[in-house]
Amino acid sequence: MKDQYNVAIMGATGAVGQVMMEILAERDFPLAELRLLASARSAGRELAFKGEKLVVQELSEASFEGIDIVLASAGGALSKQYNPHAVAAGAVVVDNTSAYRMDPEVPLVVPEINSDDLAHHRGIIANPNCSTIIMDVVVWPLYQRRRVKRIVVSTYQAVSGAGARAMEELEQQTRAVLAGEAADPEEFPHQIAFNLFSHNSDVGPEGYCEEEVKMIRETQKMFHDDQVQITATTIRVPVMRAHSEAINLEFAEPYPEQEAREILAQAPGVQIVDEPASSHFPMPIEASGLDAVLVGRIRQDISRPDGRGLDLWVSGDQLRKGAALNAVQIAEVLVARNMLQAAESV
Amino acid sequence: MKDQYNVAIMGATGAVGQVMMEILAERDFPLAELRLLASARSAGRELAFKGEKLVVQELSEASFEGIDIVLASAGGALSKQYNPHAVAAGAVVVDNTSAYRMDPEVPLVVPEINSDDLAHHRGIIANPNCSTIIMDVVVWPLYQRRRVKRIVVSTYQAVSGAGARAMEELEQQTRAVLAGEAADPEEFPHQIAFNLFSHNSDVGPEGYCEEEVKMIRETQKMFHDDQVQITATTIRVPVMRAHSEAINLEFAEPYPEQEAREILAQAPGVQIVDEPASSHFPMPIEASGLDAVLVGRIRQDISRPDGRGLDLWVSGDQLRKGAALNAVQIAEVLVARNMLQAAESV
Repeated sequence: MKDQYNVAIMGATGAVGQVMMEILAERDFPLAELRLLASARSAGRELAFKGEKLVVQELSEASFEGIDIVLASAGGALSKQYNPHAVAAGAVVVDNTSAYRMDPEVPLVVPEINSDDLAHHRGIIANPNCSTIIMDVVVWPLYQRRRVKRIVVSTYQAVSGAGARAMEELEQQTRAVLAGEAADPEEFPHQIAFNLFSHNSDVGPEGYCEEEVKMIRETQKMFHDDQVQITATTIRVPVMRAHSEAINLEFAEPYPEQEAREILAQAPGVQIVDEPASSHFPMPIEASGLDAVLVGRIRQDISRPDGRGLDLWVSGDQLRKGAALNAVQIAEVLVARNMLQAAESV
Repeated sequence: MKDQYNVAIMGATGAVGQVMMEILAERDFPLAELRLLASARSAGRELAFKGEKLVVQELSEASFEGIDIVLASAGGALSKQYNPHAVAAGAVVVDNTSAYRMDPEVPLVVPEINSDDLAHHRGIIANPNCSTIIMDVVVWPLYQRRRVKRIVVSTYQAVSGAGARAMEELEQQTRAVLAGEAADPEEFPHQIAFNLFSHNSDVGPEGYCEEEVKMIRETQKMFHDDQVQITATTIRVPVMRAHSEAINLEFAEPYPEQEAREILAQAPGVQIVDEPASSHFPMPIEASGLDAVLVGRIRQDISRPDGRGLDLWVSGDQLRKGAALNAVQIAEVLVARNMLQAAESV
């Protein structure tokens, strides 16, 4: 067992890649080498890491020589193309794209929920969708006490989920609108400044967009429960980098609010912010930069007089727990449990 | 029966008051006189109406002499203080505040839903909360075909609901944040630029804020159905003047999506915007300035395999149908049905 690891970031110059670098530094991940991989366009750029300058390398099939762990966040197509080469080179890939999430042979993991699923990996581990992670980190501890039968969730998703250029677009569009100019959408199909719209992923035959389907199926997979029924409405809002969600939960039996509070107060990765006297509840500007998902407005669902419902309001950093942090946490578990070789032993 | 009416607007210089003037002009309301009432601070200001300048008068107990209809939107405290004087002077008050909405002797009316309730008025008619109106204009036509058992609603509320100064605050704060300066909240307890937060009305002992309680109780009152169960999470978003809502409906029996579409296509005050191929669904920037509430993302709730659920996404102009337009529509029904004298005949 090594005590230092060679890590590569695929998509190092993207919004998630940048936060992966921050988090590896903050958490003092035991690095021997950090290799930054990106497209030819970004190759040669220098990025600071712990006081040193690292040169971005162009992603290629040969990029993974000597690498132990790949943190992949360059889009599903590139993951499909390059992950097999990374695995062949002996690396384990923690993949932040949607390419492998529903593959039954690929563990889909949030460490607070199902880290034991990592034992079955064959070289690729999938990081869930950001909205899924932020919901499930809060729902799972409640579920462990009493089974969730049904979830109705509405999201308020930051633009960071669409990447660094989408974040620039929100800023540029907002300046334009304030100056009385046209918004000129490029990354999104509609104006995002002072506006919001249904998540622009493709809508399937059942009327759900892909983002909503991800929240449904990924939750069922991680909870190992195909019976948990979920409906979701995913909405993009003019916020930079934390997703918020209104979550309505129906349980198999009555769930006292006080008990939910006690469970959430102890839950890993969760922080309660629930101060009615000062109208202080989870907000994206306060969740940004935090590791914990904030939860508040914890209340018995008044529409279920049988006491089997709870309502929650959460906010979590899309780039951290929703993406980069969760990926690094998976890598930490792989290291701590000495699971980096599993790919070859299976 | 007259053919022209003397109308007073209480709170004429506010965000809703201004839109009341626009709508009276647009709809050619049969006016003999339009009297603009506001606080001493605004008295003397001149406001344009149909090419003429009208001088704002200071609101006083004597303001209602000769007035047939008062459109009141100056806040609950002023309504409580002045409405009795208006009624004593022979006027009917259409009150846009929350002061009288749950008074069992005061009709609470959305004309598309329960205009017959106007017959029982005693001089004051309440205009519902904006989030309630925008939800119920869409839910009611569906409810008429099959009873709604339960509603789970999450709102995305524009700043206009907090008044003209809140709209200025969103703009000023956004400029400040883009310039790297502090946001300095005044109208709201928290930064609204690039942020969102739980509606800052008081939270009661059951954990619901007043805005949510309004949506619940006002819907039950207008539908004449105390059995419809509702839970709501109301969120303020950095959008100027249209409220959006994710609405999950549970019915007493299966409700085919196609039937819901047919009903909504015919429903008064409702316009379907539901174009998955171009990812075009209701958006606040498109709902702003429209009379109709936009509805889209109409789909069978996949979490209810029994077919008894529908999901909807709506967006409606908070200042128009959510406030000023609904009030003027009530006045139009009062005129059309010759109900302005009911106050004295009861």
